[in-house]
This record gives sequence, C-alpha cells and structure tokens, in this order.
Amino acid sequence: MWQNLKWEINAKFKEKIHRHVSSFQVIILGFMLVILLGSLCLTLPLATRDGQGASFLDALFTSTSAVCVTGLVPHDTASYWSVFGQAVILFLIQIGGMGVVTVSVAVAIFSGRKISLMQRSTMRESISAPQVGGIVRMTEFILKTVFLVELLGAVAMAPVFVRDFGFLKGVWYAMFHSISAFCNAGFDLIGIRSPFSSLTTYASQPVINLTIMALIIVGGIGFLTWEDVKRNRLHFSRYRMQSKVILVTTAVLIAAPAVWFFFFEFSELPLGTRLLSSLFQSVTPRTAGFNTADLTKMTEAGQMLMIVLMLIGGSPGSTAGGMKTTTIAVIFSSARAVFRQKERAHFFQRRIPEEAIRTAGAILLMYLGLFLAGGMFISYEEGIPLLDALFETASAIGTVGLSLGVTPELGRISQLILIGLMFFGRVGGLTIIYAAVPSRCVSGSAFPQERITVG
Amino acid sequence: MWQNLKWEINAKFKEKIHRHVSSFQVIILGFMLVILLGSLCLTLPLATRDGQGASFLDALFTSTSAVCVTGLVPHDTASYWSVFGQAVILFLIQIGGMGVVTVSVAVAIFSGRKISLMQRSTMRESISAPQVGGIVRMTEFILKTVFLVELLGAVAMAPVFVRDFGFLKGVWYAMFHSISAFCNAGFDLIGIRSPFSSLTTYASQPVINLTIMALIIVGGIGFLTWEDVKRNRLHFSRYRMQSKVILVTTAVLIAAPAVWFFFFEFSELPLGTRLLSSLFQSVTPRTAGFNTADLTKMTEAGQMLMIVLMLIGGSPGSTAGGMKTTTIAVIFSSARAVFRQKERAHFFQRRIPEEAIRTAGAILLMYLGLFLAGGMFISYEEGIPLLDALFETASAIGTVGLSLGVTPELGRISQLILIGLMFFGRVGGLTIIYAAVPSRCVSGSAFPQERITVG
Ligand SMILES: [K+]
Ligand SMILES: [K+]
Repeated sequence: MWQNLKWEINAKFKEKIHRHVSSFQVIILGFMLVILLGSLCLTLPLATRDGQGASFLDALFTSTSAVCVTGLVPHDTASYWSVFGQAVILFLIQIGGMGVVTVSVAVAIFSGRKISLMQRSTMRESISAPQVGGIVRMTEFILKTVFLVELLGAVAMAPVFVRDFGFLKGVWYAMFHSISAFCNAGFDLIGIRSPFSSLTTYASQPVINLTIMALIIVGGIGFLTWEDVKRNRLHFSRYRMQSKVILVTTAVLIAAPAVWFFFFEFSELPLGTRLLSSLFQSVTPRTAGFNTADLTKMTEAGQMLMIVLMLIGGSPGSTAGGMKTTTIAVIFSSARAVFRQKERAHFFQRRIPEEAIRTAGAILLMYLGLFLAGGMFISYEEGIPLLDALFETASAIGTVGLSLGVTPELGRISQLILIGLMFFGRVGGLTIIYAAVPSRCVSGSAFPQERITVG
Repeated sequence: MWQNLKWEINAKFKEKIHRHVSSFQVIILGFMLVILLGSLCLTLPLATRDGQGASFLDALFTSTSAVCVTGLVPHDTASYWSVFGQAVILFLIQIGGMGVVTVSVAVAIFSGRKISLMQRSTMRESISAPQVGGIVRMTEFILKTVFLVELLGAVAMAPVFVRDFGFLKGVWYAMFHSISAFCNAGFDLIGIRSPFSSLTTYASQPVINLTIMALIIVGGIGFLTWEDVKRNRLHFSRYRMQSKVILVTTAVLIAAPAVWFFFFEFSELPLGTRLLSSLFQSVTPRTAGFNTADLTKMTEAGQMLMIVLMLIGGSPGSTAGGMKTTTIAVIFSSARAVFRQKERAHFFQRRIPEEAIRTAGAILLMYLGLFLAGGMFISYEEGIPLLDALFETASAIGTVGLSLGVTPELGRISQLILIGLMFFGRVGGLTIIYAAVPSRCVSGSAFPQERITVG
C-alpha cells in the first residue's frame, strides 16, 4: 500500500511539473507573439506622423515597452506616432496590462468555446491564482473591474483634458491616460507640449494627479486582492494572508518615500504642489512610470530611492512588474525571524512556507544581478554616468518607464538589453527560467546535511 | 516520560540561547573596550607628528578603523601620526585582525590560567568554529599561523623597503605592511611620498605586489580553512564542505573581476603592470583596502564592481569583514535549487541547512539596507556624488578601507555613521542583533501555514 501511495504522489508531482512547464512556455509565447504583431503594426508608414514608419528596432522597443506596460520610449509618443500608432500602442497596453493569457481566455469565453484544463492552469499561473477553480468567474471579474475602473478614470479626467485640448482630443486623452495609468503603463500624450515631459505640466492639477494616482494604485494591487476585498468587504481579518500583506506593504511603500520626498526634495514648490508631487513621485516608481516632477533635478539620493522602489515594483497578479511587494515582504519577515531567533517566518498569524522564502531569495538575487550587470554594461558601453544607466535598467526590469532622459540616445545593444529586461520584468523571471530549464528530478535531498557558517 | 524529555530539551535550548547571547555581548564589549583604549592613546600629544594629539572624534575614527581592520583614515597615516601613533595603530590592527576574543584567550593560555567554558563558547562564536572542543589547540594554531605568515611577508618585502627607505625604517615598513596586509587592514605608510597614495607608487613592483596579495588572500581565507588544509593536505575531497566552498568562491571572486579589470580598465598601462594592477585591484576590495591604481580614474562601472566585491568581503573566521563569501555562495546555491525546481540547496554533495539559507538572506538584507541608507544619507548630507558616498559606506561595512577620497572631508555625523558601519562590519550584524535583542521564545511554528505568491 505504501508503494502505491508513493507512486501516486510521485506521478501527481511529475504531472504537476509537466503542466507548469507547458503553462510557462505558453505564457512566454503569447507575450512574444503579441509583441511581434505590435512591432509589425508600428513599422507601417501610417503609424508615424512623418509617414515613414519606424525602424524595426524602434518598433520592437516600443511594442515591448507597451505590451510589458513599461513606458520607456525611444520616441515621444504624442509627437512621433500618428493617432493610428497611438491606438496600436493603447491596444497593446490594454492586452499587456490584463495579461496575454487573461485576454485569450476572455476571447474564448466570449466566443462560447469550452475552456480547456490547459488554459485553466495557464491562466492560474499567469494571474498567480491560488487554485485552478473559478477561472471563468475570475476572468469575468477581471474584465469587469478593468473596464469599470478605466471608465471611471476617463470620466474623472475628461473635463480637464476637454478644457485643454477640445472635445474629441480631450476624450481620447482621457481614455488613453486612464488605460495607461490603470495598466501601470506610463505612456502619455502630453509630450505634445514638450517632448518626454510626461505629466510635469499637470504637477499642480489635483484632479489629474489624484485620478492617475488612484488608477495606478488600484491597478498595481492586483485582481486577486480586489476579489478578496469584494468578497469580504471591510472585514480585514477575513482577507487572505497575501491580501493583507499586499495592502500593508503597499501602504508603507507609498507613505514612507512620500515623507522622504516631502522633506528632502521639492523644497522650491508651494505647499500644495509639494504635497502632491511628493505623493505622486512616491506612487509612480512602483511601477507606473508617469512623473510630475523633473527627475533629473532631484538629488542623487532621491533618485536612488526611486531605483529601490522601481526594483520592488507592484503586487503579484496585477498589471504591475518588478520583484513584487510580497517578495520583499517575505524576505523581511524571514529576516525578522532570524533576528529574533524564532523558528518560523510569519505574517498575521500565518506561517510562510519555506518554499516562498527560498523563491523570494532567488528572485531578489536575479533582479539585483540583472539590474547591476545591465546598468554597468550600459554605463560602460554608452559612456554615461552609472546612476543614469542603473536608473534606466531598474526602470526596464521593474516595467516602470521612468527615465533620466537617456533612452532616446541609446545604441542598439543597449536597446536590446532593455527589451530583454522589460520582457523579463513583465513575464517574470521564474516563468522564463521554468520554461527554459527542464525540471530535473535530482532532488539533492539524499545528500547528508553539513554545517556552513554565513555572515 | 515524554514530559520529562520535552522539559529537558527545552531547558537545554534555553541554556544554549542564554550562553550565546552572553558570548555575543562579551565579543561586543571586548571590541568596544579595545577601540576606546586605542582612541585614548591616539589623543596623546606624542601620538601625532605636530605634538598636538588628535581630536577625540578623529582618534575614535582611526582606532575603530584599526581595530575593525578597515583602513579608512581621516588623516594620512604616515604623515600625520608619529612613530608612537603608528605603533599604537599597528598594535590595534594586530588585535583586531586576530579578533579580540582570540587575543584574550591567548593571554589566558600564556599566563597559565584555566580557560572557562564561557571563554570557550565565546571563542567558538568569535571564530565561527564548528564545535567547542579543541579551543586551546585552535588558539595556538591561530597564533602560530599569524606570526609565521607575517614574518615570512616581512622578510619578503624587507629588501625593497630597505633599499627605498634605509635599514631601520625599511624593516619597520616591512613589518607594518606585512601585518596590515595579513590582517586585511589596509593601513599603509607610503603616504609619506604623497598623502593617501596607498601603494600606487609600487604599482609595477612585483615583489611588493605579489607578497601583499598573498598575505591578503591567506588572511582572508580564514583560520578554520587553513586548519582544514593543514590536516588534510592536498586531499581536497576530504575538506569540510565549508572549506571547499570558501576556496572555490574565493578563486572565482578573484579571477572574474581581474579579467573584467584587465579588459575594461588600465588600458594605458604597459602589459606587465596592467596584469599586476588588474589582479591587485581584484584581490584588494574583499577586504584588504590597499590600492595600486588611482581608483578615481576608473570607470564608474569598475567602481560599482568594486562596491559589489567590498560588500561580499572575505571568508568567515578570518581577518576579513563583509557579508562573507559563504553567505553569497549559500544564496546562489539556494537560487540554483529554486531555478531547477529541486527540493534542496547543496554543495559538493552536502545539503545546506535551511537555517543557513534563511540566515544568509537576512544578512544580505541587512548589508544592503545599511549600505544604501548610509550612502544615501551621506550623499545628501555632504552634498557629494551618490557613487562616492556608496563607495565609502561599502568600504566601511565591508571593513575594506578603499575610498574615492572623501573620508577626510566628511562632517561629524557622517564620520559617526562610518564608525558604526565599520564596527558592524567587523563584529558581524548577527552578533550585534543577538546581543541587543533578547531571544523571545515565541516560535511562530504553531501558526497554520498559508500560501503566498512571490515574484
Ligand atoms: K510602467
Ligand atoms: K581593510
């Protein structure tokens, strides 16, 4: 009987691994396909204002940036691309923001087809859902949330944009920026005033500031968390541990940097604008990518703080990228347990699985390694200051889109590096590795354990 | 019977914790006492060349730097301190390099007193020995190794220094630099030629270069590893897993950066000097602190690579500081296990304990946090470039002593921050935390486990 049970567990485990690997590959291929199609559309002559079409590399860079909801751009969106080009970009953002898999499942649902088990498990991996069940319900919930929130955002901002740009353009702007903000994409059309200026001309406009911030936060907290909030309303104690961790970490990561920015930056601004700017620049690096302040005028310490926030990123199962709030929270909790000489890391009276701690460490290492290697290489290759290059790689890997202004001047190799980092940041490092590395069944657990001193 | 057993285990556990905490506190108090006595000696009028004595803060900074074998100096050692002052510094380096506890145990042994259990366990913590047994033998081994290696180093370098500075001064220089190199202290007396020039005037002198590098590497690999090498000679497979990890990691961390430096820096030097310089600048950041090249003339990418090496540091149970080679190796191994979806991290067919992985993560987090916070604060406070400030904090926390030249210009608060970081880096973050935080017996293992998504 024991043999049988063991065999059964073994088979289930293998099947699970097998299913995962395939899901990972499907997710990656889906993103790649959409990026490639987007690139082709952007090379069309009617995609640019000058009627020449973009070079393939620029189109690929922009398409990757849109699908990976990053917002780094080699050309200013408003002044370089035609309305058709902008519409393509917006379409890519919407697909990328919801996730390629969610979109494909949604299409399947609407066309009345049956959702296969494969699609369910891929969807589960893709939105980091805790179980396979309820995928159809979850997809419907995501779609409803996305369109409802984006509609509200557009309605809130429309009056300001209509006042500034006339009715048609104003409505288009409200729609574009609402989608871009909710998807944490960071693309904007305000460069029409002065290229690459992002939202700096709206720095003291409360409606635009508050709406965009709200959209960013809602989008970056993740569908799973909203589903939890919807189900349990204001009964915080009934939320899943993950939802609690996400909400608390997000609040801390917005409040603390805002205080720093308020006291150590923006001292030349009037009080109201200073408050708005501190808050906005604290919300945007994880992983929205709009800015209302001139980032090059901030202190280097402030820029470094932004780099840290960019690397941390948003929450899992959301429109955001980066290492994720939960990753950093798990590492902190584990460290706290080590410091107190307790046995176990925990949050809200729930133990954190050992696997999550190890995975979080691996993710931290991957992000730090790629961030540093990319930044050092670009700094050396382009002969630009290291901090500017690191800011750029953190922005790419966190799918943020903020820049100290070096993106348009980069050479081919650096552009390709950033394309790779954006893809890595959106799809997720582990998804890529699990898709590429065949799972070997050598477990290493047969080896005897031996002490090793660290620190 | 179960109750009895449980009670017994519990009591043993508590006793163990209690013993540890006390050991930690003893280590910290020992270091503090030596630093304070050193500071007082350095404020004496006869300690400086101008006969005025140093200010208390400068004396404290220099004494901390010497005891924590860092090498950051507010005043050039050769031109500011008198021979008495230099002798005090050398004495502090020797104590700090061997470790305050080792020295006190050695004194007890020589004066024929019995070594108490408390002393044994403190010594064990202090040199990261795997067991309490054999402490007397281990102490004797350490003393013999230290004096033998330092003597050999001095003899090797004496001819060059005697040629350059005459007999008496030459011998003094050979002794000083041999001890400073073996203890990974980074203090030098060559500033007599041009203040703060370190070994740049010897950049193409093979004897000095090779001897100093050898001393640094031998000192930074750790007494436990040498004991293993001595016991098992060239039978690598018989070494402890920790020794193997240390040797391999050290080799990689010397070879890889040397290759980078050779190809991307020092292109203006003749081939021989370029080879020596690449190797020397690769050996010195973990955690020696001499330099034969002008660090301010390196590319920012090269400076960043040095920062990474400084943070990693040397090996446990050695004269070196930093996060330690084993910490970074354990994190890599754990990440590799996660990537391959294996169950367990391992090295050389030995499993790594879960505790080591968690501790390594906590140490990484502590070092990164203090490094970034310190650098950002100093950059903001002193109005200096962030990279210079980060270089300085990495140098302090890794007890390295390399600098881009900002140490002498720093204000009081920044000096105090660096003093704190040097102490942290030498004594070890966990030792400080375990000494300060009372061990609470809430284990958290009673909480139910709950899934959390990371990355
Ligand atoms: K973005
Ligand atoms: K040093």
